[in-house]
Amino acid sequence: MAQQSRQVAWTLAASDIDTRNAALLAMVRHLEAHKSIIFAANDADVAQAKADGLAAPLLKRLTFQEEKLAAVTAGLKALTLLPDPIGQTTYARELTEGLKLYRVACPIGVIGVIFESRPDALVQIASLALKSGNAVLLKGGREALRTNEALCDCLRAAAAEVGLPADFAQLLTTRDDVAAMLKEDALIDLIIPRGSNAFVRYIMDNSRIPVLGHADGICHVYVDKAADVDMAVAISVDSKAQNVSVCNAMETLLVHRDIAEEFLPRLQNAMQLRNVRLLGDERVQAIIPVEPATEADWSTEYLDYILSIRMVDSLDAAIDHINHYGSGHTDCIVTEDTAAAQTFLTRVDSAGVYHNVSTRFADGFVYGFGAEVGIATGKIHARGPMGLEGLTTYKYKLLGSGQLMAEMKDGTRHYTHTLLNEECPL
Amino acid sequence: MAQQSRQVAWTLAASDIDTRNAALLAMVRHLEAHKSIIFAANDADVAQAKADGLAAPLLKRLTFQEEKLAAVTAGLKALTLLPDPIGQTTYARELTEGLKLYRVACPIGVIGVIFESRPDALVQIASLALKSGNAVLLKGGREALRTNEALCDCLRAAAAEVGLPADFAQLLTTRDDVAAMLKEDALIDLIIPRGSNAFVRYIMDNSRIPVLGHADGICHVYVDKAADVDMAVAISVDSKAQNVSVCNAMETLLVHRDIAEEFLPRLQNAMQLRNVRLLGDERVQAIIPVEPATEADWSTEYLDYILSIRMVDSLDAAIDHINHYGSGHTDCIVTEDTAAAQTFLTRVDSAGVYHNVSTRFADGFVYGFGAEVGIATGKIHARGPMGLEGLTTYKYKLLGSGQLMAEMKDGTRHYTHTLLNEECPL
Repeated sequence: MAQQSRQVAWTLAASDIDTRNAALLAMVRHLEAHKSIIFAANDADVAQAKADGLAAPLLKRLTFQEEKLAAVTAGLKALTLLPDPIGQTTYARELTEGLKLYRVACPIGVIGVIFESRPDALVQIASLALKSGNAVLLKGGREALRTNEALCDCLRAAAAEVGLPADFAQLLTTRDDVAAMLKEDALIDLIIPRGSNAFVRYIMDNSRIPVLGHADGICHVYVDKAADVDMAVAISVDSKAQNVSVCNAMETLLVHRDIAEEFLPRLQNAMQLRNVRLLGDERVQAIIPVEPATEADWSTEYLDYILSIRMVDSLDAAIDHINHYGSGHTDCIVTEDTAAAQTFLTRVDSAGVYHNVSTRFADGFVYGFGAEVGIATGKIHARGPMGLEGLTTYKYKLLGSGQLMAEMKDGTRHYTHTLLNEECPL
Repeated sequence: MAQQSRQVAWTLAASDIDTRNAALLAMVRHLEAHKSIIFAANDADVAQAKADGLAAPLLKRLTFQEEKLAAVTAGLKALTLLPDPIGQTTYARELTEGLKLYRVACPIGVIGVIFESRPDALVQIASLALKSGNAVLLKGGREALRTNEALCDCLRAAAAEVGLPADFAQLLTTRDDVAAMLKEDALIDLIIPRGSNAFVRYIMDNSRIPVLGHADGICHVYVDKAADVDMAVAISVDSKAQNVSVCNAMETLLVHRDIAEEFLPRLQNAMQLRNVRLLGDERVQAIIPVEPATEADWSTEYLDYILSIRMVDSLDAAIDHINHYGSGHTDCIVTEDTAAAQTFLTRVDSAGVYHNVSTRFADGFVYGFGAEVGIATGKIHARGPMGLEGLTTYKYKLLGSGQLMAEMKDGTRHYTHTLLNEECPL
């Protein structure tokens, strides 16, 4: 399968944007035409998952019916409106007379994506891959297998209908497939694992292929001593409870000691209305009646109606806590003090650093990228929500007429290094 | 040491560009003021290396006297003229009323670089790291240890003189240091190993830290059937023999069967004048008297006056050979046929794809980047010569006034997604 992906990658890289956009619109038609098959497959997946005792937030992710179909087809149409991510010249320079260097955006090639039991993710990932000219090997959670097969069939048929290779997307079905994929470092250029930190580490430990990890989302809201308390309560409730089963939900709240007595009782009332269970350190317990939080809580992604709370003595202590326990995903400061916000935004080492806004905004669609293939919590290549740009790389094209390094060394020619404002002609 | 790097990384990230440029100029002064110490240390390193029987090309790389000093100080001065690589806003968008997203360039943080016995590389790497606000752990080849210690002392003193932390650069001295560094994935953000494929693989297999490999440079020149033969000979000689001990030198030449009888005898004459030993496959041996090349030759980086030659039946066969045996570094087609050049540049999957120009041009200084920290032969994050841009990442700063996701979902607010042309104020 990886060899087949490698083969078709050349066709995809050379395909024009009109054909790739036509494939995206064909996907909309195929998904809508076959929706009864897809929904029936999803019914079977959900029934099995319920029988297996899957938790409610996970069942919600697994469900794929009319509402999710409408969302993914809207996403596909929106994706056609975005500019072509490949082919543009992003740097052009004359090096010496008649010798021109161009840096040109191109697809990465073959990408393996391992994702959770959320069938809409399959459509988003595959469509972003196709738009950016990449071949993709997809492995979804086993709970969603029937739904994923039905969806992938539609996407492959749509690509074939416009003359692109159906094998632009191939579905892996077993854990053994994943283990085999990790060995194919000569054929696969990038692995994007979405899942727990432990899972991303497992992938990194078992493959030479570069990994862009979408690991835990241990997001923080820090309520500074100069916070607007109304805003702090509203942002905290939204960050925690608007949707608990997503990686950009808050898991730990940090509150400055000078505002804790005013803020915490109001937070407790608001969270009670949303049925959020609160855990706190000893100083939090002295103000509101909550269960104790332990050291392990600071590193836990609950993905549930649970929030751990810690009191801190200073802005610096909040930053240190976040850089130590956080996952580099998204962290917010609530404050009216601009200097404190600036310090927080500079020193917190996360992909998203927010001032006075809910952590729930960390998302590729929200950021204007159309959709996302994952949220990168590392610092290399791409960071935060990864859209089309994260799925591209570049190559340097150098167009000459016989220039030699010996001529540069002996002074026959000289470097001009003139920046050019032109597209690469080849 | 890694903890110390992590600590000072914050100071470097927050330092202003004037201070960082002042440090670069102070480095010039310190290197020139202490050149007798540096040259004496290098004399000792070279004497030891000669006693140990180091090959001539490697001795040339190891030598650091007046000429190399002049080159590195010129490089430092040139580096001060380049724009600040951190702090710029590269994407700005209003998401909804009053909520602005900014993508801001920032340092990666702590970078470990392992490099060959070439002391000028130490100055280039450390100065690029400082200019881009990164802390760096440096491990050079053991043959250059005395020279590296003398150079690193100068660079550290220069940083301290302008008020930046001397520990922006720290020198590792043993293999055990490297093994220890590879375990520090919580403190180190990126490893850049320069060396053989086997070495880069060893690093990848023994660390969870992301790796940007500067591996073998198995560069090709393909002489197409539509090549200008004079140009093809000149480019081949320059690519092979202008400097054999560098990663952008040609190691294998591919020649189209239709031009081989005209080209090969002329190539042989030219290469004889430069004392290059030629190896060839059977069809090459039928035209010129050369030693046989074996399968292993196609994957060998000689770094010496040796060239392997293979005859191919078509442009596609040349591309397939390069994508199979090459190292993704730099590959050139010599042809007067624009369509053939376009196919080659699109389908060869290397960082540098060249038309009618010597492979020796693959270099950060030549490309206009000032210097380079390595040449990335992978496809993630950076590709080809890595200058300042390769040492930066970005973070998303989102500045709000209490916006909630619940408001977006219930229709109280709407996405505006207006692109902005402004710098982030925080």
